[in-house]
Amino acid sequence: QCNLIGWWKNDLGSKMHVSEVNNQGNFLGEYHTAVSSAQNPIEPSPLVGSQHLDEDGQCTFGFTVNWKFSDSTAVFVGQCFAEKGEEEVLQTSWLLREKVDSQTSNWKATR
Amino acid sequence: QCNLIGWWKNDLGSKMHVSEVNNQGNFLGEYHTAVSSAQNPIEPSPLVGSQHLDEDGQCTFGFTVNWKFSDSTAVFVGQCFAEKGEEEVLQTSWLLREKVDSQTSNWKATR
Amino acid sequence: QCNLIGWWKNDLGSKMHVSEVNNQGNFLGEYHTAVSSAQNPIEPSPLVGSQHLDEDGQCTFGFTVNWKFSDSTAVFVGQCFAEKGEEEVLQTSWLLREKVDSQTSNWKATR
Amino acid sequence: QCNLIGWWKNDLGSKMHVSEVNNQGNFLGEYHTAVSSAQNPIEPSPLVGSQHLDEDGQCTFGFTVNWKFSDSTAVFVGQCFAEKGEEEVLQTSWLLREKVDSQTSNWKATR
Repeated sequence: QCNLIGWWKNDLGSKMHVSEVNNQGNFLGEYHTAVSSAQNPIEPSPLVGSQHLDEDGQCTFGFTVNWKFSDSTAVFVGQCFAEKGEEEVLQTSWLLREKVDSQTSNWKATR
Repeated sequence: QCNLIGWWKNDLGSKMHVSEVNNQGNFLGEYHTAVSSAQNPIEPSPLVGSQHLDEDGQCTFGFTVNWKFSDSTAVFVGQCFAEKGEEEVLQTSWLLREKVDSQTSNWKATR
Repeated sequence: QCNLIGWWKNDLGSKMHVSEVNNQGNFLGEYHTAVSSAQNPIEPSPLVGSQHLDEDGQCTFGFTVNWKFSDSTAVFVGQCFAEKGEEEVLQTSWLLREKVDSQTSNWKATR
Repeated sequence: QCNLIGWWKNDLGSKMHVSEVNNQGNFLGEYHTAVSSAQNPIEPSPLVGSQHLDEDGQCTFGFTVNWKFSDSTAVFVGQCFAEKGEEEVLQTSWLLREKVDSQTSNWKATR
């Protein structure tokens, strides 16, 4: 089974720690980003998410990071791949929402 | 302040209910989608997310929907706009991750 | 048949003009954006693209806009919907690439 | 200067050939995809696009692929990185639009 508990590291050097997954698949953790488009110094930020609990070790999951050092929010969605005899790999895509002043700037708020 | 608690409806006819937001900004709710790319009949599905608690009523937020009727997961990220004398509006973007068999199909898993 | 030649306007007030479509479906035109994330004043910018030539009036198409007032490039992809007795509608999605200094900033270059 | 003329290969094994770039930055070529979500056998497909002609070898560009074996269209947008003493690298993002029957299916047409 795919279990997200523990530390994960991505290609950019960001790290995340998932500390617990409950029996619904909901989880909590902390994201330590290596990159930022904000002015303020980076701080570890809390994450909350949810995973499927499929028994084949290939679950999809998603989570939200509530950045502590900016008004932005990020979401990640992905899948765990646990291929025999190999380390588990997470493949994810993300969206980063920056706060904008009004709805007329909405078009450029997400990258 | 922007408070996500309650019912929200989007342009496609999907509805979501946010039932509680704690003092960290984490929230729980249920998503009733009007559209689906899955074979199975649609069922209401749980969501978990997080919002900023800015006092200006323009908070960014994100949440994950763990679909009960398919192996997919969706994430939404957006911002609440509470303009004077007008109803609150949520502007969001989303990603939908479908489960794929192996990493070679990863390129097409997200829409 | 769906014919892109002519003027189109989107919800943000941007306009585009497609001046010719050749018999392969390749086309040329000009994009007059109403919104920008660049510092410089907006200028009309050339576009090049390609459309399918299906006979059902529901063709998919894509095009690239080479912004004259910034180092950025945008791409749009979409579909024409020509429903009986109604005006033709284009539904599109887009990506905007801003120039970044080095590959380490690549993660934030596209919105 | 960044010159797109020639053959390029990506991580999935897809290849593209850019055969000419004119003095406006418009270019033509052919895309040989290694992956497909369509039923039909893959065929090389024409592409048209546009690049900036910056002198620093870091140009942004975009192009449209008009798939010959399906009703879909893809767009790519990216940047060329020509770092001293290293091979040129293209970093791109893409959207793939599949043809859908009506506007009510528009939400799922793009991945």
